[in-house]
Order: sequence, then C-alpha cells, then structure tokens
Amino acid sequence: MARTCLAVILAAGDSTRMKSGLSKVLHPVAGLPMISHVVRAVAAAGVQDAALVVGRDAEKVTAAASGEGLPVLSFFQEQRLGTGHAVLTAREAISREYDDVIVVYGDVPLITPGPLIEARRKLAEGNDVAVIGFHTEKPTGYGRLLTENGRLYAIREEKDATDEERAVKWCNSGIMAINGRKALDLLQRIGNNNAKGEYYLTDLVEIVRLTGGNAVMVAASEEEMTGCNTRAELAVLENLWQRRRREDIMLSGVTMIAPETVFLSHDTVIGQDVLIEPNVVFGPGVTVEGGAVIHAFCHIEGAHIAPGATVGPFARLRPGARLAEGSKVGNFCEVKKAEIGAGAKVNHLTYIGDAFIGAEANIGAGTITCNYDGVNKHETRIGERAFIGSNSSLVAPVTVGNDALVASGSVITADVPDGALALGRARQEMKPGRALVIRERNLAIKAARKKG
Amino acid sequence: MARTCLAVILAAGDSTRMKSGLSKVLHPVAGLPMISHVVRAVAAAGVQDAALVVGRDAEKVTAAASGEGLPVLSFFQEQRLGTGHAVLTAREAISREYDDVIVVYGDVPLITPGPLIEARRKLAEGNDVAVIGFHTEKPTGYGRLLTENGRLYAIREEKDATDEERAVKWCNSGIMAINGRKALDLLQRIGNNNAKGEYYLTDLVEIVRLTGGNAVMVAASEEEMTGCNTRAELAVLENLWQRRRREDIMLSGVTMIAPETVFLSHDTVIGQDVLIEPNVVFGPGVTVEGGAVIHAFCHIEGAHIAPGATVGPFARLRPGARLAEGSKVGNFCEVKKAEIGAGAKVNHLTYIGDAFIGAEANIGAGTITCNYDGVNKHETRIGERAFIGSNSSLVAPVTVGNDALVASGSVITADVPDGALALGRARQEMKPGRALVIRERNLAIKAARKKG
Amino acid sequence: MARTCLAVILAAGDSTRMKSGLSKVLHPVAGLPMISHVVRAVAAAGVQDAALVVGRDAEKVTAAASGEGLPVLSFFQEQRLGTGHAVLTAREAISREYDDVIVVYGDVPLITPGPLIEARRKLAEGNDVAVIGFHTEKPTGYGRLLTENGRLYAIREEKDATDEERAVKWCNSGIMAINGRKALDLLQRIGNNNAKGEYYLTDLVEIVRLTGGNAVMVAASEEEMTGCNTRAELAVLENLWQRRRREDIMLSGVTMIAPETVFLSHDTVIGQDVLIEPNVVFGPGVTVEGGAVIHAFCHIEGAHIAPGATVGPFARLRPGARLAEGSKVGNFCEVKKAEIGAGAKVNHLTYIGDAFIGAEANIGAGTITCNYDGVNKHETRIGERAFIGSNSSLVAPVTVGNDALVASGSVITADVPDGALALGRARQEMKPGRALVIRERNLAIKAARKKG
Repeated sequence: MARTCLAVILAAGDSTRMKSGLSKVLHPVAGLPMISHVVRAVAAAGVQDAALVVGRDAEKVTAAASGEGLPVLSFFQEQRLGTGHAVLTAREAISREYDDVIVVYGDVPLITPGPLIEARRKLAEGNDVAVIGFHTEKPTGYGRLLTENGRLYAIREEKDATDEERAVKWCNSGIMAINGRKALDLLQRIGNNNAKGEYYLTDLVEIVRLTGGNAVMVAASEEEMTGCNTRAELAVLENLWQRRRREDIMLSGVTMIAPETVFLSHDTVIGQDVLIEPNVVFGPGVTVEGGAVIHAFCHIEGAHIAPGATVGPFARLRPGARLAEGSKVGNFCEVKKAEIGAGAKVNHLTYIGDAFIGAEANIGAGTITCNYDGVNKHETRIGERAFIGSNSSLVAPVTVGNDALVASGSVITADVPDGALALGRARQEMKPGRALVIRERNLAIKAARKKG
Repeated sequence: MARTCLAVILAAGDSTRMKSGLSKVLHPVAGLPMISHVVRAVAAAGVQDAALVVGRDAEKVTAAASGEGLPVLSFFQEQRLGTGHAVLTAREAISREYDDVIVVYGDVPLITPGPLIEARRKLAEGNDVAVIGFHTEKPTGYGRLLTENGRLYAIREEKDATDEERAVKWCNSGIMAINGRKALDLLQRIGNNNAKGEYYLTDLVEIVRLTGGNAVMVAASEEEMTGCNTRAELAVLENLWQRRRREDIMLSGVTMIAPETVFLSHDTVIGQDVLIEPNVVFGPGVTVEGGAVIHAFCHIEGAHIAPGATVGPFARLRPGARLAEGSKVGNFCEVKKAEIGAGAKVNHLTYIGDAFIGAEANIGAGTITCNYDGVNKHETRIGERAFIGSNSSLVAPVTVGNDALVASGSVITADVPDGALALGRARQEMKPGRALVIRERNLAIKAARKKG
Repeated sequence: MARTCLAVILAAGDSTRMKSGLSKVLHPVAGLPMISHVVRAVAAAGVQDAALVVGRDAEKVTAAASGEGLPVLSFFQEQRLGTGHAVLTAREAISREYDDVIVVYGDVPLITPGPLIEARRKLAEGNDVAVIGFHTEKPTGYGRLLTENGRLYAIREEKDATDEERAVKWCNSGIMAINGRKALDLLQRIGNNNAKGEYYLTDLVEIVRLTGGNAVMVAASEEEMTGCNTRAELAVLENLWQRRRREDIMLSGVTMIAPETVFLSHDTVIGQDVLIEPNVVFGPGVTVEGGAVIHAFCHIEGAHIAPGATVGPFARLRPGARLAEGSKVGNFCEVKKAEIGAGAKVNHLTYIGDAFIGAEANIGAGTITCNYDGVNKHETRIGERAFIGSNSSLVAPVTVGNDALVASGSVITADVPDGALALGRARQEMKPGRALVIRERNLAIKAARKKG
C-alpha cells in the first residue's frame, strides 16, 4: 500500500474495574500484553507509525507497545476529556500529514488487520472517515451505526435513539480510519457542547457530513471488536483468542482430543500430525515439529520438540529444552536448558538441567543432575548410549562417557570414561530380625507419646 | 430483622436416582454437603432455628446441617405422604409460634439469602404466604405461578393447566414463607383428596385465598432454585456454583487465564492481583494472599500462601502447608504440615512433610524429609540459608543448622550444626570397561530368555 | 431378527481436509478408530457381514474394521464416481441376496444401533428403502427429506430446493437400508446424468418410486449422524462422545465433580459410588470398582482398581497396574505392571514397575524399583507389612521379605529376609564450618566468571 498511515492507539485508561496494580492494556492475552496484540494488528495493516496515548503505567505501556515492528511515539494524556480529546493528545504526530490516520484502542487484542485494511481502502476511494462496525444480536448499550445508500450518516447513542434506530444491529466499535490530510482539522472541530462536557470522536461522522465529506461503515466481526473492562472480560478475551487459534491449528492438521483444555501461547508453532492429548499448557517460545506426541498434563515453555519425540504425561519442559528426534521425556520429569539426544529416554521422576544427553542414552527413574551449588550453575554431559541407573545424582560439572554405566543410587562427582562402570553407593548390610525390634520400639514411643 | 423465624428444611428424600450409598443432601457441592449450603443460606436470611425433616441417613444429615451457625432440631419422617405432610413432621417446632416459617429443600445448595429475606418482608407487610418463583424459558414440567394484580391466586400443575396458563413462564420453586402465627392452622387444612392421596404444600395458596388471606410471589433466579435428583444434575449444580464464584473472584481483581479449569472450594480466599493459571484445584481451607502466583496443574488444600509466593506448576500443597512471602514450591513437589520460610525454594521433585524450612533455604531436587518410621511422625528443621543437596534424605527427627550444607545424595540421620557441611554418601568407584562387559552379559541373558 | 443383513461401509475417502498422514476413518474417537465404532454399531444392529469399501490406507482400515465382532470383506474402490458407484464396488457381496442391505459411512462414529434396527424393521414391513434422517434447526447445506403421508418421495439437494422445501428441517444422513433382494437391481439403475457426472445413492428414492416401490424416512438424532471432515470436526465428535458417555456413567451412580474434565476411553468401566475429581484421563483397558476414589490430575490406562482404593492426585497408572482393596497410590507416583496389595501405600514420588507389593506394605517417598538394566526387565517383590524407607532403590531382581525394613536412602541389591533390617547407605560425616568456606569459594568462582 503506497499510502502512509499513522495509528493512534488509545491506552490511557484508568482500568479501575480491573482492580489491578497494572494498567489494563498490560494484562496479557495468550501470554502477550493486550497492547502488543493491537500494535501487531495495526502493523500488519500496513501502518508506518504508532502514536500511543498513555496515562497510567505510561513507561511500561510504551515499552510493551514497542518492539512489535512499529516505531512508537508516546503521548501522555494529562486530562480525560473524551475520546476526541484523547486522540488530539497525539496532535504532533497527526499534524505530520499521513495519508491515513487510524484510531484504535489498546484493549481490543483480538482485532485482525482485515477491517483496518478495508477501512484504509475506503479512504483511498475518497471517503473521509471509515468507522468499523460490528453486527450483534444484542446491541443494547452500543452506539448504532445509521447508514443510507452505503453512506454512514450518524452514530446514534442508545439513549438518543428512536425505537427504529434501536432496532439497528450494527454497532460502533469506536475504531475508525480518518483522511490523514484532513484529520487535524476535523478533530479540532469536535466540540464539547454536551451533558458531560466531553469531546466525542464519534462526532466526526456528523462533522464530515456537514463539511461535505463522506463517511462509511466497514464491517468487522463482533468477536474481534471485543474489549475488556474487568478480569472476567479478560478471561472471555483469552477464551476467544484460544478458540480461534486452536481451530486454526486443528485445521492445519493437528489432533487435539480436547481442544478446550489446550492452552496456546501467542507464538506457539505446531506441525502437522502432532497429537496433543488433554490438558496441555504452552508457555511462550515453543515449537513442536510434525508427528510429535504431547501426552496429557504437560507444561511446556521455551522448548523445541523434534519430529517423533514424545512428551509426558506429566512432563514439564522449561526454556532451553531441546528434544531431538524420537526422544522421550516422561512422567514427573523436568527438563531445563538441556538437549535430549535422538532416541534418548528420560522417562520417570527426573530433573535434567544444564545438560547434554547423548543419543540413545537411558536416564533411570529418579535421576537428578545437581546443577546448582547454591551460587553457580554447572553442566552435566552424558554420552551416547550411556545408562544412568535409577536414583543417581550427577554432581555437575561432570561428564559421563559414551556407553558408560552408572549404578543405581550412585552419587557421581568425577567424570566417568567411555564404557566404564561407576558406582557411588554403600554396600548393603543386613540385620536379621532387627526390623521387628525397631517396630516394637516405635510402637512403645507412640504409646509413651500418647501417655505424655 | 426483629421478627423471629423458623426454617423447615425438607431433607428426607430417598435419593433413589442418585444411585448412591449416601443421602442426596449429603453429596457435596464445592466440597460442602448440599444441606450445609442450605443451612448457611437460611442463617444468612436471619433465621433463628432450623427444623430438619430427615429420613435416610438421618444422623449424618443432622450432623452436616449442624455447625453452620444455626440450632438444628431434627424430625424423622416415617411416612412419605407429600410435602405438606413432610412439613408437619416438624409440627412441634412450628407450634412454637415464630413470626415467620420458611420452608426450603435440602437439595437447592445455590439458594441465596436474598429471596428468603424478600419473602419474609412480604410476610411483614401482612401477607400470609410468599412463594418463591423463578422465570424460565423452558417451563415445561413445572407448576406455574398464576398472579393477578400482584396477588398469587394459584399454583397450577402442568397437567391441570390451560394452554394460556401453560404459557406462563413463572414457575414454582416449592420454597415459601408462611405467616408463623397461622402456619400450623394453615398446614393442617391441607387435604389429600387427589389422585395420589398426598398432602401438597402448594395447596396453601388456595387455602390462604379461601380463608381471606393473601399470597404473593417473590422472584428468584432460575439458577439458585436448581435442585438435584441425579449425579448429572449434581454436576450441573457444581458447575453453576463454580461459575458464580469464579466470576466473583475475578471481579475482585484476580486473574484466571481459564476460569473454567479452576475449581474452588466453598471457603477459598484469594487476594487481589493473584494470578491463577489453568487447571488448579482448591480443596477446603485455602487462603492465597495478594500477588501470589499459582501456576498450572496445582492441587492445594488446607494451605496458606503469603504475598509474592509462587506455587507450581504441578505442585501439591496439603493441609498445614504455610508458604511465607516470596517462597517457591515448584514442580512435582508435595508439602504437608510444613512452613516454607520467606524466600525459601523447594523447586523440584521433593517431599516436605512435618518440617520447618528457614528463610532463603534452598532444597535441592529430589530431597525427601523421611518423617514417618512406620508408626510415628517426626519433624525436620532446616535453618536459614541452608542448602540441601539434591536427592538427599533427611531422616527425622533431625535439624540442619543455619547456613549448613548437605552434600547431594546424602542420608542425614544426625543434626548438622550451623555452617557445617554434612556428607552421607559413598565414595565413587570406577571400573574401566566394565559397562561394556555388563551389557554383553545382559544381552546374553536376553537371548537365553528368548530361547528358554 | 431372523432376517439376514449386509452392511456396506463406505470408507474410501481421501480425507484431504484432515491434513493427515492417516485415512480419516482411522482417527480415533475415545481411543478407538472411527471405523471400529461404526462396525460395532452395525454389529449391534444384527448385521451378519460387513462389506468395507476402502481406498486410502486400505489394509489398515480393513484391520481396524475387523475384530469388532463381524466378518469383514474388503473392496477396493479404484475410481471415485459418487456414492452410488462406491456402494456397487461391493457388488459381489450385495449379490449374495441378503434380506437387508444397509449403507453406512466410516466417519459417523456416534451412530447407535437404534435407527439401523428401525430402518430394517421398515424393510421387514415391505418398504424397499428406508433413509435415515435427522432434524436440525440449521438445515442449510443438507439434502432435505420430503415426505407425504409417511412416504419419502424425494431427497432434494439444497440447490434444487424451492423455498418451501428449504424450510423442511428433516435432513438426509446418507445412511439407508435397502431391500436386499432388490438392492443390486436398484443400485444398477442409478445413472450419472447430472452436472458432475456422478452416481448418487440418493437417486434410489426416486428409482424406488418409479418402480412402484415405497421409500420411508427413519428418524435419528442429529448428534449421532454427525460426520467428520476436519480435525476440528473430529474434536467435536470426541466431545459429543465424551458427553454422552459421562452422562451415562453419572446416571449409573458415579460422581464427577467436573465431568467436562474427565476423559473416558471406549471401554472404561466405572462402578457405583466412585468419586472422580477434576482432570482425569482414562486410557484403554481401565476398570474402577465401586467406592474407589480417583483424585484430580490422574492418567490411568490398562489398570484395575479395586473397591476402596485411592488414586492420586497426580498419579499415573500404566498397563498392568492392579490396585487391591484399600490400597493407595499417591502424588507423582507411577505404577506399571505391578500389583499393589490390599491396604498398601505408595504415596509419594515413587516408581513401581514389574513388582508385587504385599498387603499393608508402606513404600516411602522417592522409592524406585530399578527394573531395567538397559536390556532386560526384572521383578521386585516386597512382602506384607514391609517398610521401605524413603529414597531407596530396589535393584531387581530382588525380594524384600514380610515385615522387613529398608533404611532410607538404601540401595538394595540382595534379598532381604522376613523381619530383617537392610541398610545400604554411607555413614554421615560432618565438616564443621566447611559450608561457609564452600560458599565463599563458589562466590569467588561466580565473580571470576563474570570478569572472564
């Protein structure tokens, strides 16, 4: 699109009803702050610059909005005098005469680029304002978009509407595109001659009409225009986002037995013919390649899972976990900053941190890589085809060679050469009949405790 | 409310369709028996005494109803001759001439005090009976409440209703308030001249009309009037309860990413700006203070979690777990009857039972407090800033001092002084090349097994 | 039913929209391939033989269809020329003159025998064709079943329908029963004189009418006629199946606190008064007997759970797990191919594989049966009332006797006699003040690392 465009993003709200120590637009959906979702959507609509109107948590909001592929200029809104006034807080940016100016809100994270692009196309056709509307069966409370012959002639507030107008089911999202050459002039014409003494952006439609210009409506889905004022509404947004993304992923060839129990992150990547069982939570930074299996009850973040690898049930992969082809991480296992080699198995009750596990190695149940000395982290390296007996402790830094064997229950503090057997455990002693004696003693203690 | 009130709670049903070894009203919703929910609601409506009409599991039902803040008198219903007859089982209590008598059912655990208070207010205004009704789009099967000029003139059963009456969407909940001074007289006028030969409480409306009194309807939500006859309906009640409570908690400033996967108990307390990830189950007796984080897949009961503490994912806190500020209990960890000091970390695959963990202590992966000797439980005390190496066993009773260090894989049976290092593990031995020999032997055994 | 019946099952689709390496009908619902569900339903409708029309993954599809109680003859469809043509691929089977021929699809796994039996009854009454229809509020896109005086006179495709016909809400499922004696003749009369040049099975209705026979409609629920073209639709089928089965199980006397979080397998058996907490996944082959308790977050497959046994939370039972009466398997425990004796306890962070645990034995936290030597699996036997101290490793093959005691942290490699105490751990050593020295050293290393 050859036309230039500025997005004015309103994000200065007090968020009172969120009852939060954090500005509303910083609350995440799918692990990404709402404001970042909005910036991504406007960037994808071909916008060049973003003018962010901020209030509470101004610095944090600006930081979250930045780094999403768009230069962000931040404007602090001192007073709250209505949406029209809020947009004009970014007067300096608007005055640079972009071809298009779009006005969006920081709390509509489900917005897609489609309606924004369509609104800009309407400007390119010669319209001065394009307001994004949505159709709903329950319009009560929303401003209605009144159109005639393809022209938007008014945005009518519920309280001012006639019965006929109230029956209209096209509602105002508040989001609009404005002819950038005229934007400053149009915005400055908004008055505050109303009950609350505020400047309403919606007045632009009438101003355009009175100045001989043309306003139109552009349709969006109700879902993508959904905003957020409370934590309950935040949960609704999250749910809508998850449903949309799960559906996309399933349609791309992924099986989810119970999609409603799978929670994706904004950047989760899942390949074809992956099977995901119920109750899987993906944190940020996860790629699952084709044909892998994620069993039930897994928590995965910052991990890469190669084709044919198997995870869970009850596995936790933390950032830096890299599972090679055909490897397995099983129940009650945690893997952090570690590579699990091709065909290697980490199947039960194990902690692998800061480690490299060679191909086809077998890590016994209850194995712990002791990677932390209370101050520093150290690495464990385990060779190919090595066999680590159950309940072993590998005190890092330590290397176990290829084909080496560590006996069950050993504490390994020194490197084990290739093909060697290492043991670090005491010899078994036996005291015949002693168990019965001990039980008697314990029972006596119990009896004494009761008396006492 | 200066007026006195008796609640007659009908809880004598056979519960046949529950197919249970337990009376219906003892089945819990949010961890509390249905009957207890009902007693709590009537207590909150200013009732002084409860007359419980019981049948099956009479003692257990009485026990469950008691201790919810109301004196409970129990009446055993020998015969089942209809609701009117059931209420009269409590004749002795009713005859004490309370100002108001309310009749409720033991299987409507979602009932709130509001409609009961409103019904009592109607009595105070001079009405003789106030029947609680609810509006539903699907009234089929319910008795309809027929009103005229604010007066309730009949409760019409579905089968006796005209088409016009069937179109009425206000239905009878069965719950009502009765003028306490007239209650006994009115109840005794109920006859059994009907197809089933039973005494129907609903006849009261007509009796009141015939005796020159006045009956009215009081509105309640359909949800709170929902009863329960099967386990499937019990699950519906649980779901409604959970949705209501989750919504309340979110609106108070708690984030739930997926509220539908969070299961609360009747007494769960959660502070502002707590984050709860998907799949968390709260048993009874849990308090989570502001700003704590509960990660996914946690099971928490009888625990207190201080501000800034972090739990899970995959953590289980059992009764007596107390997590101080900024402490962490991580994946595959179980904590029972133990205090985790401020900033202390119990991060991986650990069992902490009957213990005190000092502030800033670090408990390595796989650590076990061996608190049980088969007969008695013993305590483990770990000092501030102590570091317990991974895979250690702390055999209680035992104390590890401040700043002490336990080497990985140690079995600690004696107290460790402040600042000391304790080791309880064997020296590592190495057998070069032996791993390959053992593998050969094992392969030979495998081959022999196959032959054999 | 004395009449003979052939079921022609169409399962030759390309399944393109599934985006899968596997034929659509092989995708499982409740752990069983869709095609197997269909074969089970037709078998339960009294069918004698199945003629399977296959294309993609022919051998696998045939294998999955076999072994469900019905002889299966497989016919490979070379060309795709419409449903009429597909059915005639099984010409050889149809020509054997069964009394009834029913035509079903391999991707409708929720189908129940009821409508099939009813359709066959309609044939027995002298009708030539009985088409199974379903009623839906959203008929758009479906062929409509047009009936008059109980007779089905046409199946009208959406695009050919008048407005009046479009208002009909009875739709064609595609499933039908055909008079077996006439089936071959009728099917051969289907022509391909239409836009796509295909042979449509639906033409049979008109052919029957023109040849003086009678066609009728048989009603089924919309749910059971639901088919599957995408993974998203597969998830819908799974959800419908789960809801149906959960409801059945609850009505039989099982409590599920949150049924929507319990995932059953096609063969899961659950007894009365079992309590199932939220988030439980049942794989195939599980029986839970009356009165057992399954706590939250469990994953259970191939297991048998006796009355009064308790599982979880966070337990994984794998194939061959057998829990005797009153036994307990608790959090972060895995049991595989093992018997847990009556009243025995495996409560925390334990792996029990290839083992027999005696009655009333107590297995301490962190115990591992080391059953695998890298090549072979070996057995562990633990006697009655034995007490295995925490963090012990039992290196199989090994036997621990009745009433024996294994000290915490021991590695047990030799059999322990009845009543004996076995220890396999090092004596504790103490280095006063050494912990502080080590911390200093570690801090120095950290500082050096930073510099470097």
